[in-house]
Amino acid sequence: MVNLKNFFEPKRIAVIGVSRNPRKVGYVIFKNILDAGFEGDVIPVNPHVSEILNHIVYSSVKKIKGKVDLAILAIPAEKVLGVVKECKSKGIKDVLIVSSGFSEVGNNELENKLKEFLKKNKMRCLGVNCLGVYDSYNALDTLFLPRYRLKRPLPGAISFVCQSGAVGSAILDIATAKGHKFSKFISYGNATDIDESDLIEYLGNDKNTKVICLYVEGIKDGEKFYKVLKKVSEKKPIIALKGGLTEEGMEATLSHTGSLAGKKEVYFGIFKQVGIINADSLEEMFNIASLVEKNVEFKGNRLQIITNGGGYGIISTDAIVDAENIEMSSLSSKTIKNLRKVFPKTINVRNPLDLVGDATTERYEIALEACIKDDKVDGILLILLYQTPLITTDIVEVISGFHQETKKPIVVVSTGGEFTENLSESLEDKGVPVFSFPKDAIHAIDKLIWYGKKRKRL
Amino acid sequence: MVNLKNFFEPKRIAVIGVSRNPRKVGYVIFKNILDAGFEGDVIPVNPHVSEILNHIVYSSVKKIKGKVDLAILAIPAEKVLGVVKECKSKGIKDVLIVSSGFSEVGNNELENKLKEFLKKNKMRCLGVNCLGVYDSYNALDTLFLPRYRLKRPLPGAISFVCQSGAVGSAILDIATAKGHKFSKFISYGNATDIDESDLIEYLGNDKNTKVICLYVEGIKDGEKFYKVLKKVSEKKPIIALKGGLTEEGMEATLSHTGSLAGKKEVYFGIFKQVGIINADSLEEMFNIASLVEKNVEFKGNRLQIITNGGGYGIISTDAIVDAENIEMSSLSSKTIKNLRKVFPKTINVRNPLDLVGDATTERYEIALEACIKDDKVDGILLILLYQTPLITTDIVEVISGFHQETKKPIVVVSTGGEFTENLSESLEDKGVPVFSFPKDAIHAIDKLIWYGKKRKRL
Repeated sequence: MVNLKNFFEPKRIAVIGVSRNPRKVGYVIFKNILDAGFEGDVIPVNPHVSEILNHIVYSSVKKIKGKVDLAILAIPAEKVLGVVKECKSKGIKDVLIVSSGFSEVGNNELENKLKEFLKKNKMRCLGVNCLGVYDSYNALDTLFLPRYRLKRPLPGAISFVCQSGAVGSAILDIATAKGHKFSKFISYGNATDIDESDLIEYLGNDKNTKVICLYVEGIKDGEKFYKVLKKVSEKKPIIALKGGLTEEGMEATLSHTGSLAGKKEVYFGIFKQVGIINADSLEEMFNIASLVEKNVEFKGNRLQIITNGGGYGIISTDAIVDAENIEMSSLSSKTIKNLRKVFPKTINVRNPLDLVGDATTERYEIALEACIKDDKVDGILLILLYQTPLITTDIVEVISGFHQETKKPIVVVSTGGEFTENLSESLEDKGVPVFSFPKDAIHAIDKLIWYGKKRKRL
Repeated sequence: MVNLKNFFEPKRIAVIGVSRNPRKVGYVIFKNILDAGFEGDVIPVNPHVSEILNHIVYSSVKKIKGKVDLAILAIPAEKVLGVVKECKSKGIKDVLIVSSGFSEVGNNELENKLKEFLKKNKMRCLGVNCLGVYDSYNALDTLFLPRYRLKRPLPGAISFVCQSGAVGSAILDIATAKGHKFSKFISYGNATDIDESDLIEYLGNDKNTKVICLYVEGIKDGEKFYKVLKKVSEKKPIIALKGGLTEEGMEATLSHTGSLAGKKEVYFGIFKQVGIINADSLEEMFNIASLVEKNVEFKGNRLQIITNGGGYGIISTDAIVDAENIEMSSLSSKTIKNLRKVFPKTINVRNPLDLVGDATTERYEIALEACIKDDKVDGILLILLYQTPLITTDIVEVISGFHQETKKPIVVVSTGGEFTENLSESLEDKGVPVFSFPKDAIHAIDKLIWYGKKRKRL
């Protein structure tokens, strides 16, 4: 196993290519590392600058006294190899190279030379052509994107490995805005040395990571990928989105990360065998991750719908029946009998269980309790439309109370504006997953149940 | 054609079954009509109440002097027929019945009696078991949902016909929060008399309606539906979502709106022949509607991607190639030559056109101008990830400038948190459609192009 510790937990970092111009990459990286509250030393390097943000700038890494764990290179492509050689002389084994201008623009020769040198000298390299690392637990932030444009996430359970820097940062940004919390974000670009398999192996052993998201364009070593990811996916879910599935998409990957994308069927086949959850979109990737983040785990696949909107019950029924891995639960005759006793006759006790438009908080409480107790139900899709006047806001406490008591997943669907959003946020804060639309929830549940079944067989 | 004018533009309304209890339907309806700023008269009726919200309450419609255009009934099901008879005596031809407790709970006899009486007396009825009407241009609001829970939309181009009240109100709520503007929202429940075809025919002639959204569970008169919707869809797009597509979903429609849902294939076949856009989800329905709302119209199907995120370019390419009705455009040799001259060599001039991570506003401007001028391009998917530092916020002016000048659609995709959201809202305010994820944009474009092709053949 590759030792990647210095890329996430370095004690001393050299940033090579710092700049005094706030719009330059070398400035932004240096500033972001400081602003993130990194607890180790950060040493700026640039032969043409003497001081930056109250730090003395070294003219070369060789001038730095003492051990340096990680060198971050933000310099033109043609200067990279020379500086890597200096790093070697200084005894630095780990380099993070953000610079672009290698195989992704057809400059394979330059990248191959670099690769050879790294290999020969047993140096490890993240990049080239990447954003690097955001590690929320170690307060390490090498992303060269301004913090006012890209809010950084709070520490949490998701790690995101992304070949594309821009996709990664945009998704990190929206996911953070939606309240997702991250352990690590890694943009690895051309994978000149360290590749997705190395990173995922590392995350497999990272105690802060509960779920791994992966955006990948090309996999260079299929055998390694298969072996490593199979092992990791036995421990925790990996959700992948593959870019370059069509002929035209594949062509585009070449000029993006210099990747050969490879046949869709081959990838999907490997994903399936290994137990990787294949996401249809970036949105779906994070929908699934959010279920894992909230500890949702299904022991079976029979889902009960409880709703106060008949139409939503019907749409959800259609989606569950169409889903590959979920079944509609059938309530036990005991549950049906009990609920019929307490509910008005306008309520048809079945699945979907429509509590109708005048549903009260109490009615939800009765329905939830009965369905949770029912052995024929493995999880609940709780549709909660707050537009009707009789649902009181303390329903948030009722649901989160059940959520804490039971191991049966309760997944909420609530659609609406400000009033709804506020209540959904309260539920999310209490650990209950909430979706805006039935289909999003059901597709995410479907894929998570697939993973659960797969893992048992692994 | 059925004359539905009194349901949308009544001058005098009687609300039968008003209540002094703010949690009762009869109170909420009466108050909402007043709060909406309805310009005509609203007359409350209830034999047991003498005054409500500073209005004198009549003991019966028969006591009201002068003509009443529309009676709204919010009374128990068993009293409905009696009151409808009183309305008839008073000369009221149009009734809106929100009451539930008819065929949707198996009480077919009561509903059939009502239906017969209406038919015999040539009265028109919206409902039963419905929310009624929200008409933003005429300030008419019969929805019995509190305004603090369900924000009402601003006047605009979308009309939404929804068999289910709860689905309708939840979607109206979230769509309003997302900035969509509506002409009319109609929840028609059991369709005892007026059905979806009548409503859509009316909306086809409504000058304020540019696009019609429809959630439907069961269609009782297929021939009428076919004839009416074919005619309307020649004039303006109708986007439909069908509830009850699976066996299990169909069963559920029976106890919801008393509808027989019917075979999926039959519905989809009719939709296709008639030219109705078949939405896969509620979210997609409004994604498509938002394009029409913003006057997006494609003259051809060749789409050019411009991006500053390579991965997004690849994901979008995959989605376009997989879409049924869109093609990737090929830039003319002239455009390629011109762009190669001005762009750095790191930019590969093709489709997707990746302006790479250091893209500036100026680079976007050059790319946009060239693609708009190119005869081989019918529309532009403009991916704009604001996380990178060199894009200045005046790009909003640049894009909206092009948007105003050209008839070629520019559809923007921007993913991110607060910074991104603010800029996206600015663009939307200037009439440019913006999506958060590439797939949502591409699926909506795909279906709109299908409609455009279909309409030409109609």
